[in-house]
Amino acid sequence: MVMKRYKVIVSYDGTNYIGWQTQPQGKGNSIQETIEKVLQDITQTHIPIVASGRTDAKVHATGQVFHFDTDFELPMWKWKMAINGHLPDDIYVLSIEETTYDFHARFSAKGKQYEYKIELGEYDVKNRNYAFMAPWPLDVEKMIDASDLFKGTHDFTAFCGNSLVTHPNQVRTISRLQFIQEGSLLRIIFEGKGFMRYMIRMIVGTLIEVGREKITKEDVSKILESKIKGECRYNAKPYGLTLVEVFYSDEFLMK
Amino acid sequence: MVMKRYKVIVSYDGTNYIGWQTQPQGKGNSIQETIEKVLQDITQTHIPIVASGRTDAKVHATGQVFHFDTDFELPMWKWKMAINGHLPDDIYVLSIEETTYDFHARFSAKGKQYEYKIELGEYDVKNRNYAFMAPWPLDVEKMIDASDLFKGTHDFTAFCGNSLVTHPNQVRTISRLQFIQEGSLLRIIFEGKGFMRYMIRMIVGTLIEVGREKITKEDVSKILESKIKGECRYNAKPYGLTLVEVFYSDEFLMK
Repeated sequence: MVMKRYKVIVSYDGTNYIGWQTQPQGKGNSIQETIEKVLQDITQTHIPIVASGRTDAKVHATGQVFHFDTDFELPMWKWKMAINGHLPDDIYVLSIEETTYDFHARFSAKGKQYEYKIELGEYDVKNRNYAFMAPWPLDVEKMIDASDLFKGTHDFTAFCGNSLVTHPNQVRTISRLQFIQEGSLLRIIFEGKGFMRYMIRMIVGTLIEVGREKITKEDVSKILESKIKGECRYNAKPYGLTLVEVFYSDEFLMK
Repeated sequence: MVMKRYKVIVSYDGTNYIGWQTQPQGKGNSIQETIEKVLQDITQTHIPIVASGRTDAKVHATGQVFHFDTDFELPMWKWKMAINGHLPDDIYVLSIEETTYDFHARFSAKGKQYEYKIELGEYDVKNRNYAFMAPWPLDVEKMIDASDLFKGTHDFTAFCGNSLVTHPNQVRTISRLQFIQEGSLLRIIFEGKGFMRYMIRMIVGTLIEVGREKITKEDVSKILESKIKGECRYNAKPYGLTLVEVFYSDEFLMK
């Protein structure tokens, strides 16, 4: 009975969950507890799982990553099938592999990719839980122009929900912020080493206000430069957001 | 108070409905009764609506068409907003226009387009209600080759659920049957003047068996030529199917 560490890539539709993390007093259904319950069903032991980071209520993932340790023996090829066989239809494990003990889903992460979807055209029933249905015309060129302000390294104090007491350093780097328009669907791609709470949704919410011509690029610049908590009052709806991928270096792969 | 006829194009996610048509004894929720209830809320009268045809439980629509008559007066631009304001978030009216009395959503239809989606790759949580998640590898080339058998005019007795007593003529014409592959998503487009019950799902179910190499093109040909009810035992899952568009001639448009 040797303890082994496993790295899991998981996708989920966050619509019916309170988010990744289990809440005290078991308020609602979390992705984490749903997966832990499945691991308990399989192994008959409670196995805590550690994710790359939280996702909020209604936020989705196509490539969230978590790790867990167990001495429960199962042929490698059976793990994925066993877990997916027990999971509800809105959570699905894409891959599971044995990894080394120095791999940690959160601390080993080199970066993350998120995507925020906005439907610019008519309300789309099939995408209603996956893209923000903009009820106003948006000037996408203005949004792209203003988005330049966020690229690179900035103090995002005004653009996140974290307290300065618990998170005194709110400087982060956005290495990619790209707009892709596919028909009437606008996809905004974010990549960076790490994002703080509400950071992407507050940036997108602000860019939407620019697209509506309620505020200008100069207003956005002032908010960012203020570095004052609460200065940005915009927060885009959570259901438009998807955690696409978590990046790690290859050193953790066991061949 | 003049009676007027309205033509409505409506989209819906069929996941949580028993289908378009209201069932006797009110078994479950139909799209039809959900819309009729909204029209009743607005006009304070029961207004029956007439669709281009039924869709089955869990089948979706991006362009279903229905008509209704009313003498209730509302400025034209308010109709769409009023109806959508009352509808649940999985049904959405795309357009409503006044039409002439010789327009009939069902009898005036010149043709229809349907689409059946199959996910060939990994299970996709966001598409789980909109595409069939094929749990086997499918040979798409073999499916395309066999699909040629269905193109054009045939007696589809073996490939539909309608009784020969109520529907003695089961000859139909498929004017377009096209495979489009986008990444790992396979879209099969059907166009024709009219389709019988389960016809598309039975054809797709059969083509899936060909793709799995469980049956050959020759087997399919024999089933089609048999013209025997019940000969085809395959019926693809309903949730992969979407009614995309109903075609009418332009003569009914009031400018």
